[in-house]
Amino acid sequence: MLEMRRKDYQAISHAKRLQRSEAIPKEWSINPKKLEGINLLDVPLVCGLLSNIELEVTSQHDATSLLEGLRAGTWSVEQVTIAFCKRAAVAQQLVNCLTEVFFDEAIERAGQLDRQRLACVNTEVLPPLFGLPVSLKDTFAVKGHDTSTGLACYVNEPAGDHSAIAAMLLDLGAILYCKTNVPQSVMTGDSDNHVFGRTLNPQNVSFTAGGSTGDGVRSTVGPLATTLRDCALFLRTVMQAGTWRYDSNVVSLPWKNVKRKERLRIGLVEDDGVYTPVPPVRRGLKKAGDLLRMSEQVEIVPLTLPNVQDHYEDLLSYFTLSGSEHYLEHFSRTGEPLVPSLAAIGLLSKPASTLESFFALNVRRAEATRTYLRLFLENQLDAILMPAAPHTALPWDTWTSATYTGLWSYLDYPAVVIPVDVVAASDLMDDPARAKYGPNDTELYKLYTGPERYEGLPIAVQIIGYRHQDEELIATAEMLDSIINGEP
Amino acid sequence: MLEMRRKDYQAISHAKRLQRSEAIPKEWSINPKKLEGINLLDVPLVCGLLSNIELEVTSQHDATSLLEGLRAGTWSVEQVTIAFCKRAAVAQQLVNCLTEVFFDEAIERAGQLDRQRLACVNTEVLPPLFGLPVSLKDTFAVKGHDTSTGLACYVNEPAGDHSAIAAMLLDLGAILYCKTNVPQSVMTGDSDNHVFGRTLNPQNVSFTAGGSTGDGVRSTVGPLATTLRDCALFLRTVMQAGTWRYDSNVVSLPWKNVKRKERLRIGLVEDDGVYTPVPPVRRGLKKAGDLLRMSEQVEIVPLTLPNVQDHYEDLLSYFTLSGSEHYLEHFSRTGEPLVPSLAAIGLLSKPASTLESFFALNVRRAEATRTYLRLFLENQLDAILMPAAPHTALPWDTWTSATYTGLWSYLDYPAVVIPVDVVAASDLMDDPARAKYGPNDTELYKLYTGPERYEGLPIAVQIIGYRHQDEELIATAEMLDSIINGEP
Repeated sequence: MLEMRRKDYQAISHAKRLQRSEAIPKEWSINPKKLEGINLLDVPLVCGLLSNIELEVTSQHDATSLLEGLRAGTWSVEQVTIAFCKRAAVAQQLVNCLTEVFFDEAIERAGQLDRQRLACVNTEVLPPLFGLPVSLKDTFAVKGHDTSTGLACYVNEPAGDHSAIAAMLLDLGAILYCKTNVPQSVMTGDSDNHVFGRTLNPQNVSFTAGGSTGDGVRSTVGPLATTLRDCALFLRTVMQAGTWRYDSNVVSLPWKNVKRKERLRIGLVEDDGVYTPVPPVRRGLKKAGDLLRMSEQVEIVPLTLPNVQDHYEDLLSYFTLSGSEHYLEHFSRTGEPLVPSLAAIGLLSKPASTLESFFALNVRRAEATRTYLRLFLENQLDAILMPAAPHTALPWDTWTSATYTGLWSYLDYPAVVIPVDVVAASDLMDDPARAKYGPNDTELYKLYTGPERYEGLPIAVQIIGYRHQDEELIATAEMLDSIINGEP
Repeated sequence: MLEMRRKDYQAISHAKRLQRSEAIPKEWSINPKKLEGINLLDVPLVCGLLSNIELEVTSQHDATSLLEGLRAGTWSVEQVTIAFCKRAAVAQQLVNCLTEVFFDEAIERAGQLDRQRLACVNTEVLPPLFGLPVSLKDTFAVKGHDTSTGLACYVNEPAGDHSAIAAMLLDLGAILYCKTNVPQSVMTGDSDNHVFGRTLNPQNVSFTAGGSTGDGVRSTVGPLATTLRDCALFLRTVMQAGTWRYDSNVVSLPWKNVKRKERLRIGLVEDDGVYTPVPPVRRGLKKAGDLLRMSEQVEIVPLTLPNVQDHYEDLLSYFTLSGSEHYLEHFSRTGEPLVPSLAAIGLLSKPASTLESFFALNVRRAEATRTYLRLFLENQLDAILMPAAPHTALPWDTWTSATYTGLWSYLDYPAVVIPVDVVAASDLMDDPARAKYGPNDTELYKLYTGPERYEGLPIAVQIIGYRHQDEELIATAEMLDSIINGEP
């Protein structure tokens, strides 16, 4: 061995996790003995750490109504910020979801904003996200903190500058207080890595909490929110703030105010022709479809998606243009092995591409975007409704592919995922012969072993709109959501 | 020789030119004997082919006022179309500017539009470009006609479909009647190729008529117009028509109505640090700068552009990613040699790039876009004003580079070129030692030999705005143009 490794990944991870726990105040620790037998989702309510007002602030409001209260002075920014920091501290102790923790900075900034509000004669001049706590995925750089994305070789390299979205959120008045976990390489469906460990699913800790939310082909920024109006709030505020000032490469579209249409035409896709949805997912989609069919406001058009398998393979080729060596070199710097889910998907055993095959990929993608635009236009669709995945959350390390969502990343079409139900006792296991699309499909299909293990896990559908027409998509999703899940 | 060439480029060209002249009605031929000693720009007025109304329509109006007249019925669409076809026929006979000629189709469509107008109770329902004749550069596919772009190997391959812009213009009510010439490969500053021959500069036939107008790095569509309000008309109409319906890869931005600012901050760039502007170009820029400085509405900020030489070299690398072989193969199919200007610029003696160096190019460009955005923002600029080139039109085959405009193609910033003056008798030749940037600069600088040969050629400046903010740029250019050239 001619060269010593800079530092072993285990030592790096150990120090990093210690630093993370020290960033959580001692008095916010939860006594694990008190938690036995309690549903993890109920812990914040019963652990005694959050006051009634703190519970109200973090449970009873969406961002839109929080902002109204913050502006009106119903709560101070500091009060709201501490409530969210406490809630995040509880979550971290239960499901290991945080990477960078900077509650102290957040609370200090909250105090400054409170003073700013008091000094201000007219609250209308306060910025649009005044005092709103926002957590960012670890991939977004926040000045002074690591952007390790769960790779040991990037630990202890604090960002010299804010990423575009962090800078913008701060300028808009938001409070950044922590960053959240990602899969090793940000490319699998398991938020698991050697630096921070695995994030658990609070519904069922032996299931994955999900993973990548759409990086890769074209980096996009999107919100996770509890209401669709909060999704709209995020997009509208960010788009109106002039994204081009923050990112010289962004496609900076001004926010359009769109009117809800009287009637929508929705393409209904049962499956993607690659993986067969398991029974609860089929039931969820059918429930959504039936409710929409009964509505005067919606016309349903059954639809088949062409060539999803080919497009998904091209998407994987985009992910591995530089070949495995490029990634593996990063791992080797600290001796870090692949996590099981990353090894399983096989992305990291590919050779580097050539410029010629990259051009061929681009040509095929251009052709695919033409085909899909034609599919939308010829069917006069406002959106497509389909499962967000063929499965619900999966047991650890069993996730292998994302054809249902990857297709739209590949085509650069926006999508909104909304919940429609949870797995019920009636969602029985099915004959694996129902899996229509070959051995990989059968393997995935067999993972659903019935309600004994899966009951209570959320079932979701996705709604896909036209490229760059996120405003119309949000309006469409609001209308469909109110029909499927009732008015908010 | 194992393989026969499909057909010799000279035979292809001969047949193609014959076909082109046959598309021009015999009765529209001009008698060359009558033209001796007449300034080419005056020929349309004195050749007797165009009636007074046809001269008025083609000389006294911009597109905006033509559309008003067409809508009001001042002229029929057929009348206007024939006028423009005649004018194009004259131009073709004088300077060889056309490639595809389809006057017959245009006149037939004009008749249809006239009938449509007569059947129409309310002219407000007529499409926004109703009856407007528009010529397209040869690179844009028009169904049923070649898109040979001056390469013999592509002749006699009529397009099966309209390009996005052609389809859109037709849907908007425009009349397509011909396509115009381009340089061999569309990459040089000389509109010269073996299929159609050289397009002459009507100001001085021994000078180039210019060449590529911005294809390559990111294909863009832009108007050549006689007024800035026509540029706005084109952009507004196209952007409002939903470009995304026509092109699945376009960045489809809705048109924004922007208010003229009361006061503008303009960065004034004397030269690009690669080529020294020749005396008339310097005088033109100084004239524009002085007029703006005297205006209450403008604040001038002297500015230097960083690293233009490096960025231009990267731009050339983008142009030649596939290497020379890719182009040369096309030429060899018909035995077609390079035209002198294409051979001179050396673009076609480059090896193919690798994926790794392509990625490195992208990283450098991303960095450059950050630097230039910062330059604009930190100087609070509305736009940059600088020469459109270090020279005026050049003698045939002497054009070698386009650093002044290529920089902005590389960065994807929009630019408007406006005329400010013409070369005057006082624009004397200068000491070549005034060229500050090395041997290439000196070579180019020496091409300006004084007013004897150059007098009367236009001098232009360009105005560059922020990426994707074409509306603000048009508003800025209108304000600067009215200060420099007087109110329209």
